[in-house]
Amino acid sequence: MDIEEFVNKSVGEWRSMRSGHSLAFQQFEDVLSSIVIKKLPNTDQLLNDTLDKFKINSNCNLNSAFQMEWEAESDWEPESQDKVSSGSCILIPIPTNNKSGKLIRSMGYSEKVPTESQYNFLEDGTFVLSTKYDQSIAEERIWFVSENVRCRSSLIKTSAGSGILQTSFASEVRRIKI
Amino acid sequence: MDIEEFVNKSVGEWRSMRSGHSLAFQQFEDVLSSIVIKKLPNTDQLLNDTLDKFKINSNCNLNSAFQMEWEAESDWEPESQDKVSSGSCILIPIPTNNKSGKLIRSMGYSEKVPTESQYNFLEDGTFVLSTKYDQSIAEERIWFVSENVRCRSSLIKTSAGSGILQTSFASEVRRIKI
Repeated sequence: MDIEEFVNKSVGEWRSMRSGHSLAFQQFEDVLSSIVIKKLPNTDQLLNDTLDKFKINSNCNLNSAFQMEWEAESDWEPESQDKVSSGSCILIPIPTNNKSGKLIRSMGYSEKVPTESQYNFLEDGTFVLSTKYDQSIAEERIWFVSENVRCRSSLIKTSAGSGILQTSFASEVRRIKI
Repeated sequence: MDIEEFVNKSVGEWRSMRSGHSLAFQQFEDVLSSIVIKKLPNTDQLLNDTLDKFKINSNCNLNSAFQMEWEAESDWEPESQDKVSSGSCILIPIPTNNKSGKLIRSMGYSEKVPTESQYNFLEDGTFVLSTKYDQSIAEERIWFVSENVRCRSSLIKTSAGSGILQTSFASEVRRIKI
């Protein structure tokens, strides 16, 4: 598995079941959401804005740049059926080699700022992403369990590295290939 | 990471937050439970009964044999505070080499029968367990994210292998080392 294959396998419309675990308070949060992942042409304006922001030469290989959009419903407030979270971000993998590289995101996961993460692939194809923020470190893993089902786990720990603040796990089922 | 180190790191009393995802019905199940993992002396009667059942020579290396006990509360029936699940099983790793082997269990995970599973470790120390039952295949992954926090994901698929029936994820925090 390399990043181009991984992104190609990820393209489509997904239905996600996600459970968050707050370890200190032993609280669960269950969220259903829709996720759309689509590749971006090199000419995309947002892609080029993000490259500018990170001062990245747009001559580098951008074959795997993609956009992710999501729309979620949370159970924190079960009396409300309002959408509580939706958003979109641009993700630009910059491979160092077949197995690792960095990933630029127009918006981070743990903190809502542009981020630069490190990724690598384990021998079984699991994608592992690590992001350092000011206050925290986020680690994500994504692995395919069949063509149309993938799992995603994440954890957020204190930037000192020892305290695990929360974990989450999502089961994602692809409904439509794009 | 080898199996002996893995079992030594796992010994203790753990508090588990576990979320199950039923993919077809998009249902969540959140369960809090206590888990106790303790090593077994070679002379343990249940250990030797299990070895007999699988016709395993008790002269093989049994350093990593352990017992797991759990007691869970489920949210399927929120009006009831009764314990809905508790149990205990004996687990006997039989290493083939440093990175893989088989695991004998007095009771399986997906189906409540004695099972023989295959395990291996990924390069980052993740423990991966695969069990074939009559009607299903279960795959589990356990990885430590700090000394006292580990994550466990599982999925159950049809024995034909293509249909993913359910997934689950547990965040386990060790309260007491034994």
